[in-house]
Amino acid sequence: MSTFKIHTLGCGSAKPTLRHQPSSTVVDHRDTLYMIDCGEGAQLAFQRHRLRFSRLRHIFLTHLHGDHVLGLPGLVSTLGLGGTGGKLTVHTFNDGKKILQKIFNFFAGDLPYEVEFNVIEPTEAIILDTPSLTVRTVPLQHRVPTVGFIFEEKEKPRHIKRDMIDFHQVPTSQIRLIKGGADFTRPDGRVIANEILTSPPTPSLSYAHISDTAYFPELAEKIGPVDLLFHETTYTEAHRAEAAPRGHSTARQAATVARDAGAKALLTGHYSSRYNDDTVFLREAQEVFPNVILNREGLVLPLD
Amino acid sequence: MSTFKIHTLGCGSAKPTLRHQPSSTVVDHRDTLYMIDCGEGAQLAFQRHRLRFSRLRHIFLTHLHGDHVLGLPGLVSTLGLGGTGGKLTVHTFNDGKKILQKIFNFFAGDLPYEVEFNVIEPTEAIILDTPSLTVRTVPLQHRVPTVGFIFEEKEKPRHIKRDMIDFHQVPTSQIRLIKGGADFTRPDGRVIANEILTSPPTPSLSYAHISDTAYFPELAEKIGPVDLLFHETTYTEAHRAEAAPRGHSTARQAATVARDAGAKALLTGHYSSRYNDDTVFLREAQEVFPNVILNREGLVLPLD
Repeated sequence: MSTFKIHTLGCGSAKPTLRHQPSSTVVDHRDTLYMIDCGEGAQLAFQRHRLRFSRLRHIFLTHLHGDHVLGLPGLVSTLGLGGTGGKLTVHTFNDGKKILQKIFNFFAGDLPYEVEFNVIEPTEAIILDTPSLTVRTVPLQHRVPTVGFIFEEKEKPRHIKRDMIDFHQVPTSQIRLIKGGADFTRPDGRVIANEILTSPPTPSLSYAHISDTAYFPELAEKIGPVDLLFHETTYTEAHRAEAAPRGHSTARQAATVARDAGAKALLTGHYSSRYNDDTVFLREAQEVFPNVILNREGLVLPLD
Repeated sequence: MSTFKIHTLGCGSAKPTLRHQPSSTVVDHRDTLYMIDCGEGAQLAFQRHRLRFSRLRHIFLTHLHGDHVLGLPGLVSTLGLGGTGGKLTVHTFNDGKKILQKIFNFFAGDLPYEVEFNVIEPTEAIILDTPSLTVRTVPLQHRVPTVGFIFEEKEKPRHIKRDMIDFHQVPTSQIRLIKGGADFTRPDGRVIANEILTSPPTPSLSYAHISDTAYFPELAEKIGPVDLLFHETTYTEAHRAEAAPRGHSTARQAATVARDAGAKALLTGHYSSRYNDDTVFLREAQEVFPNVILNREGLVLPLD
């Protein structure tokens, strides 16, 4: 069972089609669901993925274009209809807080569900810090202020070597410290080095979500060598001339970012409605970077 | 080819499910599409029905609950993305105009699409009058101000009897008047009665859309003997005790309204998410009124 998974609820762009929904992704990390963007229809896709509303605690908005936001009022209404109460934190710019508060008050103001806002800026910052992961923002280049979100697991506990723990008679009260890297001092004063008692932790994983943006070379370095990079591929090189003015990237440009960042894998998406065959994004990206995963609604992708 | 059809885009209630979408209906009358309510996802269902955005001219909102409204911002954005311009009239209460203007300005303010508001009141009134039909409101009993909409075709032109027109040598310039019911005076002064030249017009049709409302006996008379009555059937009699306090009706109550109004047919809908088998609404309504049509997403229903 993976404890870090990506669910694609929608990977189309602004103009909705019968093949793709507008943007929404859910990061499923341990017991918590983190939604990134919430295009119209996201709450239904959420149900189709058999995710549970009670596990949804955070929504991150990359920017304030309708195709990334307009599913949120309906989702919040539905959460309120659950009737059990609960709390959701929406991470968005101050403008987003202002308009969304008006909408929620009007359409869901009487519902027993609390929405809290965390106002973010289009800068590099850590915006969420939990015991098991951090989320940081990276500013992007779109037509309006936009950020990408990078989820990074914190270092995990080292694995106990059960036989060595028994041999050296380590008491249970010490186990947590030893998983954290501490040595053990026996009652007779002999010090047992941590490496004797433990093996290295499971590697920490990281996920970067980059949408929407024009290509700029400095981005790769800001992202770094993540395990999975979602990077928008709105266009192919055939329409490269339109990409930058509209604040979007081609599949080749996304692959260039993945390669230069040292990412392990690239996930495509935010496809323009003009393409009928999505495999063009895959083929174009693979010319630059080998490990490309073609996105689609319904995709569930474990990071480990 | 029918020139008066109903398309059901969504016939669920507030809590969205994988079986039913929130409320939206399209009335297709001659060359124009009239949408009634616009729950989340309506724009996609609209495309699934192969309807054309360029024919959509009016949207009527029964009331300002999210499950009847929250598809509208996305729909308006998409209309703007068409890039061809155009104009849409939204018929809603003043509160609806205020919140929707804020939302449209924020999410679709830069798009080349004009949205005009026609502010309506929760009273009986004719709110639209075109050469071929009128739309009037009927106040309903819900938890917030709510109206039903009744579409009534105007009297249609009488049918020309081609052989008699030829025999009496009626000039083309007179045809329009004669279709309107005028007699024809021949050059020799002889008057030919209209009934000799024409046969009666195709009957005018009418459609009533009643959602959401508690049952009240006076409603039937205000609706009158329409050809098709959509009346919400949120519940069955098994949950009758919940219907009135929540401003909703049972299938039996809807059928009672249909019977007392003298409607020709009843269309169900606005199903609560608690029912897994919609045929319960059909069976219950048919105990009171025989001609019941079970609604579903994708339904296209000609009135003639």
